[in-house]
Amino acid sequence: MGQDATDVIERARALLDPALRCVLDRLDPADRRIARYHLGFADREGAPSSAGSGKLIRGVLALLSAEAVLGDEEAAAEAALPAAVGIELVHQYSLLHDDIIDNDTERRHRPAAWTVFGQPATILAGDALAALAIECAFGDLDEATAGGRDGDGMTAGTSETPPTAGAVARALAVATRRMVAGQAADVSFERAAEVRLDACLAMVADKTGALLACAASVGAIAAGGSPEVIDGLAAFGRHVGLAFQLVDDLIGLWGTAEETGKPVGSDIESRKMSLPVVAALQAGIAGADDSAAWHAQRLAAIYAEEAELSAVQVAGALAAIEGAGGRAWAEDEAAAQTDAALAILHDLPIHDAVRRDLIAVTNMLCRRTG
Amino acid sequence: MGQDATDVIERARALLDPALRCVLDRLDPADRRIARYHLGFADREGAPSSAGSGKLIRGVLALLSAEAVLGDEEAAAEAALPAAVGIELVHQYSLLHDDIIDNDTERRHRPAAWTVFGQPATILAGDALAALAIECAFGDLDEATAGGRDGDGMTAGTSETPPTAGAVARALAVATRRMVAGQAADVSFERAAEVRLDACLAMVADKTGALLACAASVGAIAAGGSPEVIDGLAAFGRHVGLAFQLVDDLIGLWGTAEETGKPVGSDIESRKMSLPVVAALQAGIAGADDSAAWHAQRLAAIYAEEAELSAVQVAGALAAIEGAGGRAWAEDEAAAQTDAALAILHDLPIHDAVRRDLIAVTNMLCRRTG
Repeated sequence: MGQDATDVIERARALLDPALRCVLDRLDPADRRIARYHLGFADREGAPSSAGSGKLIRGVLALLSAEAVLGDEEAAAEAALPAAVGIELVHQYSLLHDDIIDNDTERRHRPAAWTVFGQPATILAGDALAALAIECAFGDLDEATAGGRDGDGMTAGTSETPPTAGAVARALAVATRRMVAGQAADVSFERAAEVRLDACLAMVADKTGALLACAASVGAIAAGGSPEVIDGLAAFGRHVGLAFQLVDDLIGLWGTAEETGKPVGSDIESRKMSLPVVAALQAGIAGADDSAAWHAQRLAAIYAEEAELSAVQVAGALAAIEGAGGRAWAEDEAAAQTDAALAILHDLPIHDAVRRDLIAVTNMLCRRTG
Repeated sequence: MGQDATDVIERARALLDPALRCVLDRLDPADRRIARYHLGFADREGAPSSAGSGKLIRGVLALLSAEAVLGDEEAAAEAALPAAVGIELVHQYSLLHDDIIDNDTERRHRPAAWTVFGQPATILAGDALAALAIECAFGDLDEATAGGRDGDGMTAGTSETPPTAGAVARALAVATRRMVAGQAADVSFERAAEVRLDACLAMVADKTGALLACAASVGAIAAGGSPEVIDGLAAFGRHVGLAFQLVDDLIGLWGTAEETGKPVGSDIESRKMSLPVVAALQAGIAGADDSAAWHAQRLAAIYAEEAELSAVQVAGALAAIEGAGGRAWAEDEAAAQTDAALAILHDLPIHDAVRRDLIAVTNMLCRRTG
């Protein structure tokens, strides 16, 4: 405990990675193959792969939130590993569907699952992971202890369910629905004539914030934490989610291909309405100073182009976002959300060593630029 | 109690219909609009519609399974209405995704939701209904009693949760994953060189049987029934599911447009590998008598046609399925599955009036032809 963020994450990943591999074995062959590819455990032929499943940050936060209540790493894993795997599966299922919805062909420097296995099979693999996530809440991490595929499994194992399992399942379902509501709002924005910044922030609070709020508190739920600690950690996670999304949007615009996993300029080329862009466009609507308004109009004109954008136009759009104040606003807002997250942590009655771990992880997630 | 099937269904529908309308109000506007259209509560503009949500047979079975334990209709509704709404939402979400996966443009004589609202928004509406189904397990039927959209909802209402809520949620998740596994197997069959009848029956046991097994037992779980009754009702439901699918496949081939909701011959035109077709093709593989094998080869040749089929070819395929014994096999198997379902019911320690209701509903669902 109390180590730097990389150590904290690696320690949690060492628990999460094998548990995720194990739980995927419960899927039917067709869904399992796609899930294993998507999580980087296998290549498209099903052979073992070292592509890696990402930082598993939601699972890491879930384990830390249990440790915040119990003060002991081993007891936290015992109480909350199924919940941590569950929240990570919700995130992974949302990525499978998101890539179809956004027509994104790459994920973590590899072809997106739907480009390999087709849209029908990938929609179903996402559906399977969503259901498996709820089963995880009940501690069903491997085939031997769970309903499995024989019989109807209606009563299997119910008696061994931990007492907090229902609350964990409910929290996962509530967070999933808010996440989906955010994604649905995001899709509806694509057809909207104008997207206001407050609507866009509400969308991000649902799309990214709800799942991180759940991640940062679901381990505490599993560990039987008090409502004060659970609600405090959820509020902490929501602020982390907003800061994380703002930083992600900034990197999406000004990051390298290495950092984003996609070609430089692709967010502009796809006319993505990310937060810095919406903030910049609003400068034209809100009657900011003349220079900012001029930049906002220039940005709007580039976004309205029907044709593919040239490199010069992409660079012009980036300069316009900056000139209209979108970049500075996003940087300030990310810092404010990070500060709000840390202020909540500061006051929560949790174990100090875990508080330090959570601070380290927060700073790593939310202060990635500059 | 003890009335004919139509009365039994109408009585349950009178509870289910308003509860479903109420729970949809908890969705965000984008997902709600699609869900209300899909369930026939609204037209594409959102105006009230009398299109109707179908027979809601899964919700009906869930309510009856609670009544089987409690012997009282009002107590059954009190204990199991949220579970009944939950199982119905799982079914409705699967239809939203299924129509995308199968590229079906019509559902209940209306344009399928994805043709109206687009695939991205419809995938998300399905995801939202799947999460809402799990929330229902916890008795969250209206906004006022549930986490809602304010705050993170991590601890909201947990204390009022009924003691069987966790078991209901788990049963819904297990059944959902088996249903999805069946759908995934179905999709994989489309690319397979040969589909064996036993694999096809296993697929249907997952795709249709798992959700009906859950529907027929989840009310008993909510009502605190014994493992004997719960498992018995689940086994009953699985047999009903298989019989129902066999009858559905037969109607899909030989029914009128009125009965199927789609043009006559469309299952043949789309080369659907339904159970009677697979059974007929197997007659060619399995070395049945010469006449059956000849019909099987004729059917295989028509199914292998790359071009659109003529009316004569469609009629030829239907005659070949019959000639190869596929129709008779499916009719016999449907009768056998129905008998097996009724035999289980006969021996279960449940209230006799509800047993009669379940028998009436079973006969209505499984003996629709002839």
